[in-house]
Amino acid sequence: MQDAPEVAVLRLGHRPGRDERMTTHVGLTARALGADRAILPAAAGEAIETAREITGRFGGPFAVEATDSPLGVVRGWDGAVVHLTMYGERVQDVVGAVQDRHREGPLLLVVGGGKVPADVYDLAEWNVAVTNQPHSEIAALAVFLDRLFSGRELDREWSDADRVVVPQARGKVVEDVGSED
Amino acid sequence: MQDAPEVAVLRLGHRPGRDERMTTHVGLTARALGADRAILPAAAGEAIETAREITGRFGGPFAVEATDSPLGVVRGWDGAVVHLTMYGERVQDVVGAVQDRHREGPLLLVVGGGKVPADVYDLAEWNVAVTNQPHSEIAALAVFLDRLFSGRELDREWSDADRVVVPQARGKVVEDVGSED
Repeated sequence: MQDAPEVAVLRLGHRPGRDERMTTHVGLTARALGADRAILPAAAGEAIETAREITGRFGGPFAVEATDSPLGVVRGWDGAVVHLTMYGERVQDVVGAVQDRHREGPLLLVVGGGKVPADVYDLAEWNVAVTNQPHSEIAALAVFLDRLFSGRELDREWSDADRVVVPQARGKVVEDVGSED
Repeated sequence: MQDAPEVAVLRLGHRPGRDERMTTHVGLTARALGADRAILPAAAGEAIETAREITGRFGGPFAVEATDSPLGVVRGWDGAVVHLTMYGERVQDVVGAVQDRHREGPLLLVVGGGKVPADVYDLAEWNVAVTNQPHSEIAALAVFLDRLFSGRELDREWSDADRVVVPQARGKVVEDVGSED
């Protein structure tokens, strides 16, 4: 989010076809819950397009990038790497240390799919589990971001949106605000 | 979770084939993050099977039920209904009221997929948005549960597990504990 070092989310292990919607949800969750950038496998064309389209309609800033080498992004990252995995340390035990580190510099959050190369566990400064139970990389990312930002991401304001949803007890209200540009 | 009225998660709007993995992740997220029961559309056979299988291996208690009429479950629910939707009230504004209500009785959390019937917005006591941005029903469910239980779900203990993952800074440790039964 603004006024803090960057948080980028990298999707590893995308299987074309099978993982298209999961990767789309990873990208949209990263955007909605306060990350600054999603780095998605180039093979996930639909997910990349959707994340960009939603950013165009509902605002940013949020960057969506494609990579041919997710592992290369991990290796080349200039900052701390956090790998979300059910085998890692408990989020409630380590999130404070990650927050401290984030005050100093950018974070790369790595979200796996199926099999994650063993290297990633070693390259990561923290392997973090949102419960040590099998569930969903999307759920793990969501809870991790909410805790990393201590809930402040929910109050984030968006720039250059064409549409704004107005919170309602019942029904749907979407304002067409247009972009200034 | 134990020692509190039930929290059940209902998946609405499952499209067979297309939504199989999303519905699986809804079921597993419900289990991992403290709900007591998932009610999934009967058409989501793979998701139902996976949620039961994971409960068998990694423990419970957690119930997985199939329904032919998700809307009937909403109509017949004896307690409060909370519908997660990007059009709803902000979670940070209403979660306290939902927690108060949960002290009195069971909650049904309704998680939509594509199009949710307008009825659901009226049947719900609360329509709740985890950000008013488009992202993921799995992410919304995860953040909502974490906030509903104020993080206590992360310390939950599991019964009758065959396997226990032991949190690690690096690598994977899974203990084969066997079930007492």
